[in-house]
Amino acid sequence: MHIGKYSFEDFCEAVQRFHGSPAPGVLIGGYMVELARHSLPEGVLFEALCETRVCLPDAVQLLTPCTYGNGRVRVIHVGRFALTLYDKTTGEGARAFVDAGKLSAWPQIRAWFMMEKPKSEQDGKQLLAEICDAGRSILGVVPVMIELDRLGLKKIGPVMRCQVCGETYPASDGEVCGGCIGKLPYVKEVWAGTVG
Amino acid sequence: MHIGKYSFEDFCEAVQRFHGSPAPGVLIGGYMVELARHSLPEGVLFEALCETRVCLPDAVQLLTPCTYGNGRVRVIHVGRFALTLYDKTTGEGARAFVDAGKLSAWPQIRAWFMMEKPKSEQDGKQLLAEICDAGRSILGVVPVMIELDRLGLKKIGPVMRCQVCGETYPASDGEVCGGCIGKLPYVKEVWAGTVG
Repeated sequence: MHIGKYSFEDFCEAVQRFHGSPAPGVLIGGYMVELARHSLPEGVLFEALCETRVCLPDAVQLLTPCTYGNGRVRVIHVGRFALTLYDKTTGEGARAFVDAGKLSAWPQIRAWFMMEKPKSEQDGKQLLAEICDAGRSILGVVPVMIELDRLGLKKIGPVMRCQVCGETYPASDGEVCGGCIGKLPYVKEVWAGTVG
Repeated sequence: MHIGKYSFEDFCEAVQRFHGSPAPGVLIGGYMVELARHSLPEGVLFEALCETRVCLPDAVQLLTPCTYGNGRVRVIHVGRFALTLYDKTTGEGARAFVDAGKLSAWPQIRAWFMMEKPKSEQDGKQLLAEICDAGRSILGVVPVMIELDRLGLKKIGPVMRCQVCGETYPASDGEVCGGCIGKLPYVKEVWAGTVG
């Protein structure tokens, strides 16, 4: 079964190139992206919400115009293997998920999805073959409505230079930037710029 | 000046294809990635920390093996235009940033970086030409040390099915998944699966 413009084999190669390996989560994610996209009206300008940081953001980035850095992929990690594509102006969307109740015919996918075996004991080749054969049949999709103002993607707004580190940051964050109040995992904060 | 394997023009095209436009932030980000990478010892297995969610994650994803979905790009958004590449085993890294004190010779870059003008009043063509000419000269780089256990990328661990929605989630999150306790911006949570 095709995934967007790709055959399954071609998509495996594209995933290998971008993600570093033909990860089961990105491959199944490819079918999820396609299912959600086909559940939206044609031509809708959509964005994406991933419910896990693992794998799914890469499926979205490979198959849609949404990337993390262009602000059209939002990740709120609750660890559910699900994604929603939604109309960015109305919030109306389609949520695709792996339906654990449909996995009984696919022992390798089930073992991978339910983490029944450590990775070293999984049969990777057989798992990919099952993913290819199963296609969308293991997925579900439901209509959803996103509260856009809960996505937390406020505009950056005016910027200013931090009194402590000298770097530019959003003025709405207050007198000192987030880096200088310990929000970043550096052992020691650095003073960064030349005066100018 | 080249950006990885790309000429500046080719990188503009690659950014257009992936990000949707030849955004100044991704182009400058390309020089930042290269600067940080060349400040690390050859052959180090590195990961990336972006201090803003805007543009920089896409520069990293285009130029390195790190992607958001493979867990090698971490974004902690404090709105500073800086990124660090670091040795994933030791945390030793190099932090690249735009040095606001070096922008006086580059009026278009300065206006863009300091948000002195609305986007509609910026001269996009001239801005790209300045970015190409300025290359790394507007950047700074400093050695840093990352506290790896503050990156918050704990393993997913064993999974279980949520008592409320029926979906699979990390057992370490407790009795009910994050979606069902309101962490996601859906108007109404959905019950998702078939019983099985």
